[in-house]
Amino acid sequence: MAAHRVVVVGGGFGGLQAVKALGRAPVDVTLVDRQNFHLFQPLAYQVATGSLSTAEIAAPLRAVLKHQANTRVLLGEVTGFDLERQEVVLDHLPDGGRDRRLPYDTLVVAGGASYSYFGHDEWAEHAPELKSLGGALDIRSRILRAFEAAEVEEDPDRLAAWLTFAVVGAGPTGVEMAGQIAELARDTLHSDFRSVDTRTSRVLLIEADSRVLLSFPPSLSRRAERSLSRLGVTVLLDHKVVDVTGTAVAMQNPHGEVEQVPARTVIWAAGVTASRLAAALAQQAGVEVDRGGRVPVGPNLTLPGHPDVIAIGDMVRVTAADGSAVPLPGVAPVAMQQGRYAARLIRERIEGGQTAPFRYRDKGNLATIGRSAAVADIKGLHIGGFAAWLIWLVVHLFYLIGFQNRLLVVLRWTISFVTRGRGARLIVR
Amino acid sequence: MAAHRVVVVGGGFGGLQAVKALGRAPVDVTLVDRQNFHLFQPLAYQVATGSLSTAEIAAPLRAVLKHQANTRVLLGEVTGFDLERQEVVLDHLPDGGRDRRLPYDTLVVAGGASYSYFGHDEWAEHAPELKSLGGALDIRSRILRAFEAAEVEEDPDRLAAWLTFAVVGAGPTGVEMAGQIAELARDTLHSDFRSVDTRTSRVLLIEADSRVLLSFPPSLSRRAERSLSRLGVTVLLDHKVVDVTGTAVAMQNPHGEVEQVPARTVIWAAGVTASRLAAALAQQAGVEVDRGGRVPVGPNLTLPGHPDVIAIGDMVRVTAADGSAVPLPGVAPVAMQQGRYAARLIRERIEGGQTAPFRYRDKGNLATIGRSAAVADIKGLHIGGFAAWLIWLVVHLFYLIGFQNRLLVVLRWTISFVTRGRGARLIVR
Repeated sequence: MAAHRVVVVGGGFGGLQAVKALGRAPVDVTLVDRQNFHLFQPLAYQVATGSLSTAEIAAPLRAVLKHQANTRVLLGEVTGFDLERQEVVLDHLPDGGRDRRLPYDTLVVAGGASYSYFGHDEWAEHAPELKSLGGALDIRSRILRAFEAAEVEEDPDRLAAWLTFAVVGAGPTGVEMAGQIAELARDTLHSDFRSVDTRTSRVLLIEADSRVLLSFPPSLSRRAERSLSRLGVTVLLDHKVVDVTGTAVAMQNPHGEVEQVPARTVIWAAGVTASRLAAALAQQAGVEVDRGGRVPVGPNLTLPGHPDVIAIGDMVRVTAADGSAVPLPGVAPVAMQQGRYAARLIRERIEGGQTAPFRYRDKGNLATIGRSAAVADIKGLHIGGFAAWLIWLVVHLFYLIGFQNRLLVVLRWTISFVTRGRGARLIVR
Repeated sequence: MAAHRVVVVGGGFGGLQAVKALGRAPVDVTLVDRQNFHLFQPLAYQVATGSLSTAEIAAPLRAVLKHQANTRVLLGEVTGFDLERQEVVLDHLPDGGRDRRLPYDTLVVAGGASYSYFGHDEWAEHAPELKSLGGALDIRSRILRAFEAAEVEEDPDRLAAWLTFAVVGAGPTGVEMAGQIAELARDTLHSDFRSVDTRTSRVLLIEADSRVLLSFPPSLSRRAERSLSRLGVTVLLDHKVVDVTGTAVAMQNPHGEVEQVPARTVIWAAGVTASRLAAALAQQAGVEVDRGGRVPVGPNLTLPGHPDVIAIGDMVRVTAADGSAVPLPGVAPVAMQQGRYAARLIRERIEGGQTAPFRYRDKGNLATIGRSAAVADIKGLHIGGFAAWLIWLVVHLFYLIGFQNRLLVVLRWTISFVTRGRGARLIVR
């Protein structure tokens, strides 16, 4: 009898964990991804600010799964599903192939989420997002080019626009990004330029809500706001972005007035929306996605009416047995635990066992602000400052895939910490 | 009195040495480059094969010259010169500026050279060159994509084309590139794929001349050919490329017959041509460029009739006092020595001294073939194998700019040597 075929769509945190946890199971695993690497997205902002190189936060999927004999990797884009025939529709295959079908016995979909522009996709060209490696490299080029332009700009108004950096969204990524740009301008680049004083740069962190790091307790939000202010970041709370052009960002302030701030560099880290694979699954299953585009799944993460389809990570809304939504943050640990759960469900089904519903074990929440400050919320224990930063450091190195990357990142961080330099500040695109 | 203004065009090996050697001179230096980094081009092939990351062979020019107080860096493209008015014409400035003028008292032009497609620029899109960082990243993506395509290809003829890699030109870069692709296919990727056996790949090294490494003594060429054969590279001597399409390369063999070889990946490393800045200088000075597009300069590297204009590196042909050409190889040490000579000439002129004509001190010639073989020609001493490889290693690390890069490259090479892995095999573009 042929082995049970598992197709996993997406090599992010959730998908990769599912694949790895199936390593010794009596199944044939196929992992499909559009890209040939797993991205450690929590450090993408360090690539965007020239601290790290792309290869240090991305591991080739084939290298990660080299020794996992029951698994193959396929580069290609999933455009749809045929749940009746148990097939995945593939497109943009590397050999130029289109619309090929990949059959499965169990399907695991882990398509993730991306930032949404609140229905204004035309802002994307002026405000790249920080979720992909391409986005990070694009942001890096724009930030560095802005300083280069400032160096040769003679008009004071245009100069101010080159030296204004607006980060939209004050979640962990936005907070980290704003802190890094401030440090880049103040420490790293200060003596690199002759005409312009990079320390006169303005970094705006724009948040529609009333505090930063909304997923943290309010006391840590305030602590993070203080750390940001010390770094020179202007935190604009209760400000809603209403327009982004190549030269300015417009926002509505708490009094309802629209302010226009000249800024040549805008970075987007707000408004999460689920992968369009969530909608593709929902449509096939005859269910509705929620406001964030997420597909509902049952307590064991399977699609309603389709026990052979498991969906995990940022693209799903988990519902309890009574139909109520289970609130889960959109963070890597949730996706990873769901990935391992999916693998367990598959293994136990093959063995004929029962699997208890998925339960998230919250190990804590971390965000870093600049060179040596962070906030941590670990099982109700609120930690800030250097201690939280050390925890952040250890946790991120631990979860970074690949021994080589860990070693190189430690080395780069040590050098950067001592010299305040950033070796990877190259304009490549 | 205002300081003597020196403008240096190009931050490659020659230009950067000139700038650094002027660090303590009583002059104002402006370095103009199209890119914000100095590229260590001899290791570009390692970026192209996923051994190294871009940031490890490129150093931001501003970082390199951070502490050199008399020097500023300007990002922009030089499009021409006005030698009468002593001005450089700048275009594509980072603030969007065009056609701005930069005055000089002494001009140093170090525009370098690039590969030429023998008048067939239409081949460029199918056969990227290995001289720039963008080219190296493009080649990396193409090589990795070819293996990905092979993994899903079912037609045996098309499969063979995906697994055929043609390197055009058997100079040091072509030899190194061919060796690395062979190792990538044989060692690194072998257990990464499930359907395709990457060890069945063919690597062709196509050379119009009768031996590889023409700038080396014939005995070392033969040694390099044997090393290449051991790695599985097919060396095609006396073969002239006559056409390159996206799916095949056509070449004329020694018998005058045209052979067509299906190959999806073609890499160009042949036919050097000088920067178009050479022609711009020649036209202004009323002299002719040579067949390689190089501008003639006198024994002290100045442009005929323009003692205030110095041109160095791969874009010049040095002529002796009697008008005869001084034969110099197109390698980094020549450019670097000329850069330092240019700085000395400027300093000694300001001090009112005389400077002897430029003389190249040949310290030797090195090329590496794969993981632990190389050839070295050091003052007539011919060395091959592992000993030459160790020399190659030390010399390249010594000349790599920046302590951080040296440390990181040592670390990556050590890991790669032990694991045969290549951490940077990411398809980013």
